[in-house]
Amino acid sequence: MGPVVAVVGGGQLARMMAEPAGALQIRLQALVEADDGATAQVVPYSQVGRADDAAAVAQIVEGADVLTFEHEHVPQPVLADLISRGVNVQPGPEALRHAQDKIIMRRRMTELGVPCPRWTAVSSAAELREQDVVRWPLVAKTPVGGYDGKGVQVLDSPDDAERVATWFDHPRGEVLLEERVEFRRELAVLVARRPTGEMRSWPVVETIQTGGVCAEVVAPAPDIPDHVAQDAIDVAEKIAEGLGVTGVLAVEMFEASDGVILVNELAMRPHNSGHFTIDAAVTSQFEQHLRAVLDLPLGETAMTAEVAVMVNLLGSDLEDPSSAYPRLMAEYPEAKVHLYGKSVRPGRKLGHVTVTGTDLPTVRRRAREAAALLGGR
Amino acid sequence: MGPVVAVVGGGQLARMMAEPAGALQIRLQALVEADDGATAQVVPYSQVGRADDAAAVAQIVEGADVLTFEHEHVPQPVLADLISRGVNVQPGPEALRHAQDKIIMRRRMTELGVPCPRWTAVSSAAELREQDVVRWPLVAKTPVGGYDGKGVQVLDSPDDAERVATWFDHPRGEVLLEERVEFRRELAVLVARRPTGEMRSWPVVETIQTGGVCAEVVAPAPDIPDHVAQDAIDVAEKIAEGLGVTGVLAVEMFEASDGVILVNELAMRPHNSGHFTIDAAVTSQFEQHLRAVLDLPLGETAMTAEVAVMVNLLGSDLEDPSSAYPRLMAEYPEAKVHLYGKSVRPGRKLGHVTVTGTDLPTVRRRAREAAALLGGR
Repeated sequence: MGPVVAVVGGGQLARMMAEPAGALQIRLQALVEADDGATAQVVPYSQVGRADDAAAVAQIVEGADVLTFEHEHVPQPVLADLISRGVNVQPGPEALRHAQDKIIMRRRMTELGVPCPRWTAVSSAAELREQDVVRWPLVAKTPVGGYDGKGVQVLDSPDDAERVATWFDHPRGEVLLEERVEFRRELAVLVARRPTGEMRSWPVVETIQTGGVCAEVVAPAPDIPDHVAQDAIDVAEKIAEGLGVTGVLAVEMFEASDGVILVNELAMRPHNSGHFTIDAAVTSQFEQHLRAVLDLPLGETAMTAEVAVMVNLLGSDLEDPSSAYPRLMAEYPEAKVHLYGKSVRPGRKLGHVTVTGTDLPTVRRRAREAAALLGGR
Repeated sequence: MGPVVAVVGGGQLARMMAEPAGALQIRLQALVEADDGATAQVVPYSQVGRADDAAAVAQIVEGADVLTFEHEHVPQPVLADLISRGVNVQPGPEALRHAQDKIIMRRRMTELGVPCPRWTAVSSAAELREQDVVRWPLVAKTPVGGYDGKGVQVLDSPDDAERVATWFDHPRGEVLLEERVEFRRELAVLVARRPTGEMRSWPVVETIQTGGVCAEVVAPAPDIPDHVAQDAIDVAEKIAEGLGVTGVLAVEMFEASDGVILVNELAMRPHNSGHFTIDAAVTSQFEQHLRAVLDLPLGETAMTAEVAVMVNLLGSDLEDPSSAYPRLMAEYPEAKVHLYGKSVRPGRKLGHVTVTGTDLPTVRRRAREAAALLGGR
């Protein structure tokens, strides 16, 4: 009874889908990396298997209305095979390849007329040294498999080419070079889109990265001029439509010093920049993703608070971050704490805290302090 | 890693505890009635067994920090035995007996000086006919096991005594008689209390019953004078303290036409009158119950919306209420839908809808309309 959603991935994103799934009587069938991981702890139907194993993925789609993902690592041939067997895959492989390969993404963004940093693709260290499309210093990225600052290097001059020489050994063979944008701040827009085309976006947020990892999100982005916010949402919706994205699309952007929006990265799934929606929006990104991939009408995206700040817990000095609950909950009764059931490792995304309110400096300070307690700091 | 809570019961209340448990990395171990019931669908650790089976209850407390309940049906000897073996039971048996036996409850309320309808207890149909403490017509209640209008009868005159004659055959042997209160409306206060004494209450709500079953809850209670709201909260907190309740206590009350508050019923667990807190309060009653029984500091209980209306789905003309999602979600994008994974039976609590906003008539109308769609009406 009720819809059935198969989801590939056993981390915190699939874990957080379980909350709205329970409320909406949606049965989740998860393909997880380990039977005691973040998702398996809260989803009774969890099957252990690899995301690139066609047989494993085939198992969780049994009886499911749709197959979706918490990451981009299901190979295209596996997706093609599923579709040939009649499986409903959302987002589809055509959309998903733009989240799997940053060079394909950049090419398509350029075709769509979406503003991007200057970019080019090179096939060897020699080509990298000699290219004159992107000025030095530049940002080199592996087109596939990079995340959270991994697979990204700033190269100051052609002499640095050797630092990414091994990246060309990858079967993909190319490296993406991007202009190093002087930006005022980073923004993100989350938009959800259904197969039938309906779209809804949440308010534009500001994201604060530390070492390439999302550390903090402020919603809505403070003091953002209306036209900049509208530009950012227009860009995100243009991408969602142009790429035929279904489910949640996160578009990470730079706000350049002149107010121009440039697209940085895409993710086709719930995203760290949208965690605040659980506690501060009428419809959370996790509920919306499930609705969207099931082609159900989308929920309202208005915020339920004037201001929300989400702070990530990246690693912890505590063996068990929940041991900070007594002090945290006593001092921050308004804090919404989320821990993902993961063992502590340096820099690992272990959880997050969201605080809402009306005064941004207070909300931000309290969210940071509460998260610091979970970190034993 | 993280706290572990054993919970007796496999219905919608334990099911809804799973959401905040996931967020707070609290492991739930549930004793459920069926392995495919409301709770078992969303809680990986679900053990099938009876609430009155000491061995079954003993199994789920293995490794748990605390044992709690979604209903009042664990017999006192089972609780006493668990405590003698060192199990932390919250709420404890001494508090819980007041939710298990309405005569014990009335006696204790009277001792505490809490305003109640006039009441008496009788041991036979003859005694019932002859009593002159409570005026006719009166309300007769079985002291144990009644719920949702079951075990409650309005008796117009001594001639009606025969209608409850079989109730005296119950081992408990007594029947509770209560004055039939002329009330303006019904109110409820939810308060959470920790073993160390901290208490927090949510705003007073109005409840609307149909045939003894909660149909609708309006939060906060509309146009309630400050002193009446304060009286209601004072009464609830006096009871929580006086009875040593831990976890969530729901106090159902009558607001008499003169503004006097009279206590009707108690429940020592999350309660239907508090479902609105999931979508309309900083801390939901389910999160608060888990925090309270774990003796963790309590969360803020302020509402996140001006007005919230929760409407129950009682039975449905649809075989699968979720088949109404396409229309419901298109027409009511702001509605928060909760279905409990239960098969449809007439009058059964299958789910609820909460709508928030600023204008009560609009919010109420839209919540009712959305719930009616789930009912196929």
